[in-house]
Amino acid sequence: MKNKTEVEEVRSRIKKDTINDKKHSHEQIHTYESVHKIRDSLLSSASGYTNYRGVLNLCVVLLVMSSGRLVLENILKYGFLVRIDVPIQFIKDPTAWPSLLAIVLSNIFTFNALKLERNLEKGIIQETTGKILCFLNIFTALLAPAIYLWYREANPVSSFFALTWYTCLSMKLVSYFQVNRYQRLKRRLENSKNEIDEKSNTDSIKKQTKNEPLIEYPDNLTYRNLYYFLSAPTLCYEINFPRSERIRKSFIIRRSGEIIFLSSLLLFLVQQWVVPILQNSKIPFRETNILKIIERLLKLAVPNHVIWLIGFYCFFHSYLNVIAEILRFGDREFYRDWWNSEDVNVFWQNWNIPVHKFCLRHIYKPLLNQGITKSQASLIVFFISAFFHEYLVSIPLRMFRIWAFLGMIVQIPFAVFVKKFLHGNYGNMAVWVSLIIGQPIAVMMYIHDYYIDYFKVSD
Amino acid sequence: MKNKTEVEEVRSRIKKDTINDKKHSHEQIHTYESVHKIRDSLLSSASGYTNYRGVLNLCVVLLVMSSGRLVLENILKYGFLVRIDVPIQFIKDPTAWPSLLAIVLSNIFTFNALKLERNLEKGIIQETTGKILCFLNIFTALLAPAIYLWYREANPVSSFFALTWYTCLSMKLVSYFQVNRYQRLKRRLENSKNEIDEKSNTDSIKKQTKNEPLIEYPDNLTYRNLYYFLSAPTLCYEINFPRSERIRKSFIIRRSGEIIFLSSLLLFLVQQWVVPILQNSKIPFRETNILKIIERLLKLAVPNHVIWLIGFYCFFHSYLNVIAEILRFGDREFYRDWWNSEDVNVFWQNWNIPVHKFCLRHIYKPLLNQGITKSQASLIVFFISAFFHEYLVSIPLRMFRIWAFLGMIVQIPFAVFVKKFLHGNYGNMAVWVSLIIGQPIAVMMYIHDYYIDYFKVSD
Repeated sequence: MKNKTEVEEVRSRIKKDTINDKKHSHEQIHTYESVHKIRDSLLSSASGYTNYRGVLNLCVVLLVMSSGRLVLENILKYGFLVRIDVPIQFIKDPTAWPSLLAIVLSNIFTFNALKLERNLEKGIIQETTGKILCFLNIFTALLAPAIYLWYREANPVSSFFALTWYTCLSMKLVSYFQVNRYQRLKRRLENSKNEIDEKSNTDSIKKQTKNEPLIEYPDNLTYRNLYYFLSAPTLCYEINFPRSERIRKSFIIRRSGEIIFLSSLLLFLVQQWVVPILQNSKIPFRETNILKIIERLLKLAVPNHVIWLIGFYCFFHSYLNVIAEILRFGDREFYRDWWNSEDVNVFWQNWNIPVHKFCLRHIYKPLLNQGITKSQASLIVFFISAFFHEYLVSIPLRMFRIWAFLGMIVQIPFAVFVKKFLHGNYGNMAVWVSLIIGQPIAVMMYIHDYYIDYFKVSD
Repeated sequence: MKNKTEVEEVRSRIKKDTINDKKHSHEQIHTYESVHKIRDSLLSSASGYTNYRGVLNLCVVLLVMSSGRLVLENILKYGFLVRIDVPIQFIKDPTAWPSLLAIVLSNIFTFNALKLERNLEKGIIQETTGKILCFLNIFTALLAPAIYLWYREANPVSSFFALTWYTCLSMKLVSYFQVNRYQRLKRRLENSKNEIDEKSNTDSIKKQTKNEPLIEYPDNLTYRNLYYFLSAPTLCYEINFPRSERIRKSFIIRRSGEIIFLSSLLLFLVQQWVVPILQNSKIPFRETNILKIIERLLKLAVPNHVIWLIGFYCFFHSYLNVIAEILRFGDREFYRDWWNSEDVNVFWQNWNIPVHKFCLRHIYKPLLNQGITKSQASLIVFFISAFFHEYLVSIPLRMFRIWAFLGMIVQIPFAVFVKKFLHGNYGNMAVWVSLIIGQPIAVMMYIHDYYIDYFKVSD
């Protein structure tokens, strides 16, 4: 009797399932039937499964968490180190003033450049004399502030800004001279009735700036035109720049907000994160324990890279876009997608477009026209770039250690190595490693040496 | 005269360019013509650019580097803590032996289960009596080893393994009983000439295992069949399991290599990474400095999670696949893609498929058949699961702190929260955070308490 009830229970269950749940009827009836079938584990290569999107999220979570922990550990260890009044201190610091003076005086070189162009245009000065004068003007613009700031023992930060200013100015004046010279020679060519597809050139310019009144050489030789170029976020001169339609106020507000937030963040990170590490790193350097030095370098590399990334965004995206928006400067390509670059050369071609464009237009291509081979021209560009890296670091810190120069030069064999042996994502990772380890370590060497030399850290 | 030469130079350059380099002629002629055009910066939302593949590589590089630095820092701080002879020590330890005895004795319960099934099949024991006997057998299988190991003060690690063994055995015996009972009742149903779509069932089984001789109830009631099930990497009994074609020796060798390497890595990580953190963490816990506790928890969470991930792969992929390969067990779905799960429930349904499948087939669906609602059934499954988590931790450590139970229960409101407020990648990140922070912290609480209690760490 008992068994019969059980049997009926099963039968009624099966019936109920079949009626109630038509869709899942097969599953429900076979409650205790087969649940296994032949299949591979997902992580077996045989499964062909490749969706690891979630692992990316894990990486993000782990990075945020470890950073959070580092911040906490840091605050527990050192307390709150940030001095909010740093910008005010900076302005009050008398050693910052020579740099400001230097920047104001830079107008002299601008004035010289315009005067020279006007005289060249009028034929008062010969082309060769003009070349020499231009060279002297730019050479002085690079040398004079360096000597001045060195002997005034200016604050290294303000000194760095002043020299960056002069370096940009020099590049802009080179571009200004070369473009004007080209325009001048082209006009003479036209005047001597040799018509070379010149109409199409004018057409192409007209197309690009159809909403703006077009200026033609020599009407561009005005202070207004030159100062617009000097303010614009580019190092390549054009008589007529492409202009955006209007100034978007909300765009400026957002970008300015970013600048304020990110510079504060940078100030915070440097004071709270980098300075303590540097203070602790003097011991291993003197003891020359190789493991400890590596540990220190790795500890420095991460905050340095974070600061570099924030600095990159703040300057190349926020700052240059604000300037461009205010000036209605149309070309906003200040960087390309260097974060995806799979070899070192591509990175150098993509991360700093104003400088890259300048080097290509005013050094590399003219060199090619002189009959120099491509690889030689690249090498020359690289050495000039390495020289300016050294210039911008050595003078403000008032010490020559050639770390920056070496840091740049080492890129050449490294680029060859990466191109030959690493491809795709591995190449990309190698680029990141060189950014995180190589380049900033050189900067850190300076700061470290500077710190030891100038602050006389007690042993 | 001078100017004429210059003009000729430009003319000849333009001509040379046009001839030498037809392709790039446009570019070369306009060396100093326009290089700017109107375009947005890539990082502006207006650019529509979204390829940040390189940033993923950056994350990987940063993670590898920070981990490398942590390892270095750890070795510099604590030296090399690993004792390679741990497994030998473990075997020599007399407190490990009770667990081994317990595992050997588990055959008694297997024997009971088979005896019971045979008697039920022959009709010597009634169905209701069978149910009671089965319950008693399984209840004893869970209680007896727990009491025995508690009073023998067995080594917690070996004790944990023994109890896991018994928990699996109990689940397998539940499945064995339920499936056999279903088959028995179905056979009686057939015998009483009520034919319910039974042919199709047999067909479906035949299709799945066409290369193997099919066994039908009651021919499955043998030691051979039962021990195959007990060895197989599944908790759900079937009379005929799907079998793979052949044993791939290279597959076994690879998976075994993984097991050896990963278990060594686990031993290394626990001794070198976790133990020092635990030793250092007693101070903040007593001082109850909330910031310090959070810093410690975060410091524990990362190695704990890494160990959990390695342990997951080692057990669910390497170990279960080796067992399955040796037994020619076809169904290798031991886990699904839980790493992509965007809410907590999906994670619990995907990370441990043997247990999930068991709960679904032998608890959840039978409960639904009893007329219980889906959410109630889920809740019951969850509480049973929480109970066993507590069982497997409390008994080996010989202390009841309900951290594991709470850790599981907290998942319920958390799951509701995630489902309601977080979607897509945010949901996925929330799951990761709960894995990294929530669940392992509970485990750490035990280890910490255990450490303080048993090793009497000097204050």
